[in-house]
Amino acid sequence: MVIGSRRDILGGVGAGIMLAGMATRASAAPSRKIGYAIVGLGSYATRQIMPNFAGCDHARIVALVSGTPAKLETYGAQYGVPATHRYSYKDFDCIRDNPDIDAVYIILPNSLHAEYAIRAAQAGKHVMCEKPMATSVADCEAMIAACKKAGKKLMIGYRSRFEPYNRLAIDLARSGHVGPTRFITAEHGFPIRAGQWRLDRPLSGGGSMMDIGIYSLNAARYLTGEEPVEVSAVESTDRSDPRFRTVEDRISFLLRFPSGIIANCISSYSSSHNSYRVTGTQGWIDMDPATPYEGQTMTIRKDGVVAPRTLPAPAKNQFAGQLDHLAECILKGGTPIVPGEEGLADMRVIEAIYKSAAQGTSVRIKA
Amino acid sequence: MVIGSRRDILGGVGAGIMLAGMATRASAAPSRKIGYAIVGLGSYATRQIMPNFAGCDHARIVALVSGTPAKLETYGAQYGVPATHRYSYKDFDCIRDNPDIDAVYIILPNSLHAEYAIRAAQAGKHVMCEKPMATSVADCEAMIAACKKAGKKLMIGYRSRFEPYNRLAIDLARSGHVGPTRFITAEHGFPIRAGQWRLDRPLSGGGSMMDIGIYSLNAARYLTGEEPVEVSAVESTDRSDPRFRTVEDRISFLLRFPSGIIANCISSYSSSHNSYRVTGTQGWIDMDPATPYEGQTMTIRKDGVVAPRTLPAPAKNQFAGQLDHLAECILKGGTPIVPGEEGLADMRVIEAIYKSAAQGTSVRIKA
Repeated sequence: MVIGSRRDILGGVGAGIMLAGMATRASAAPSRKIGYAIVGLGSYATRQIMPNFAGCDHARIVALVSGTPAKLETYGAQYGVPATHRYSYKDFDCIRDNPDIDAVYIILPNSLHAEYAIRAAQAGKHVMCEKPMATSVADCEAMIAACKKAGKKLMIGYRSRFEPYNRLAIDLARSGHVGPTRFITAEHGFPIRAGQWRLDRPLSGGGSMMDIGIYSLNAARYLTGEEPVEVSAVESTDRSDPRFRTVEDRISFLLRFPSGIIANCISSYSSSHNSYRVTGTQGWIDMDPATPYEGQTMTIRKDGVVAPRTLPAPAKNQFAGQLDHLAECILKGGTPIVPGEEGLADMRVIEAIYKSAAQGTSVRIKA
Repeated sequence: MVIGSRRDILGGVGAGIMLAGMATRASAAPSRKIGYAIVGLGSYATRQIMPNFAGCDHARIVALVSGTPAKLETYGAQYGVPATHRYSYKDFDCIRDNPDIDAVYIILPNSLHAEYAIRAAQAGKHVMCEKPMATSVADCEAMIAACKKAGKKLMIGYRSRFEPYNRLAIDLARSGHVGPTRFITAEHGFPIRAGQWRLDRPLSGGGSMMDIGIYSLNAARYLTGEEPVEVSAVESTDRSDPRFRTVEDRISFLLRFPSGIIANCISSYSSSHNSYRVTGTQGWIDMDPATPYEGQTMTIRKDGVVAPRTLPAPAKNQFAGQLDHLAECILKGGTPIVPGEEGLADMRVIEAIYKSAAQGTSVRIKA
């Protein structure tokens, strides 16, 4: 693996956390583009991820993996992926023999993430995996171990970390722009349509919490920069609703952080929510909507004055920023800002949330 | 008690819950005004309640009770209350001999509410009591029993129930204007200054929850029209802050209601909050601010369209509406819309909130 060797050498340079180069189009940028295999050709892959490779400096689509031949045909033609670079799940492990593939992007139902991430690492490929990282802490740990053993990078698709308003919110919240943070409120939800794999527990591993509530949780963690030590949750699901036979509808959870910050969070599959607010001693930072594909809106209240905060359009959108970030980590060396450990940290809290709701007790999380 | 007899006769007419006559200045309104004794001449009494008698149709100040002779002098002169109608706490029980006093309005530190409400009832007076009704469920029950035994009305000072936007929010939420309610979020708090009786547990009975968090709780209850069946709470208090030596700073709580609605609530003594939102399947009803003395602002999102909702200025503000409501209940008969049982219901949940936070368990509330 000549290419791999080259990258391994480069990997020794510039260690440590590398900030996503969303605003930087370095003059000395590597000319080679990292080749991604897209694993799973569902709606999110084909409508959001694949079109955004066009905005990438360091990433390109080189292979497709799908169980549906017609999709391989259609998208292969659309993205110029030859038949030699199209795989079924049965052939998945053959990606090891394709040197054009540097990394895979796993966009499968949640319960399949662990298996395909591990097989990709074993095939010598870097891994980008959609959130939730997996459906259990044990699976997350196995994925991290497999990538470590293979010497491959593992990154989770937390796109908001590559979105300018969310990045600004993090800076403002953690620097105490409206005073030390006292509360985070975060709400995410949408009325889900029946008939999706997300409503089938064996595939999804859970309901709204796994899918959309994770945005509330992740925001609470990235806005504080802390890990919660106590979780308390209440679930509300109408089991007579055919959508919710196997997974939860609504779940609200409280997180207590070491500094004393409390997060009040909402996750819903039966109502629309997409916002968060950081309340400090001198005001608040509000994002509504907070984590859509585009259109984030920030408003700040400080010392009694409420004002919108606007940013110039970024050079790269959050999707391209995310795809390029893993590519740059591979090319230049460095650890992604949202590595497997970030997905694992969310999954630890998600397991605690489910446990708290089921047992009717608060759950302590060990550091 | 001739006057009492007249009212007892009238009390037989128009039984049942009487809606607050905030918009109705009935042509057949009773000409006599109910005489209130103001018990406690602190800031809320002198700045908010007493000036608003000027806007009342059926209520007037006839007596004052205070431990500070200078206050009796000052406010007695200002409101035309003669020396014969000014009382110290030592003389409190003498109000029984003053036929001009129909009702008392208790605006004392929380832990004194029960004692003075019971003594007022025993003196043959109707009782308006500021929230929180008392500092324990047991005290609330004793107050209700005492007023029932004396045949006197008992009302709690939940002023928002006499405020037009909050009344509209109740109507819209309960009638499913934005679809069946899925979540309530309610936040109340302010950065408290040191040196107040509210920070002294023997007087306050608790911290932010008793004082300001009760607005979040009460809103969750009045917006749903239901009683919570499960409570889960997390507290965060910096005990090294001299303000919080004996009472809590922040407490977040989740309420689950019988219909499945979840309320996510905030109570704080170290950050500013005053808002609530009712999220239904088709949108939300937002109030920000929700429960100030004036300036309520409502915004509604329905089927994707966000629009402000404005109401004409009311004939009577919430303070006058509240004062007149008890007066009309006395004059015409009827039960206040916020009777002692309403204060008791909040106190039951407050005790459950404290228990949940202390024990780290969710607490079930019996109907």
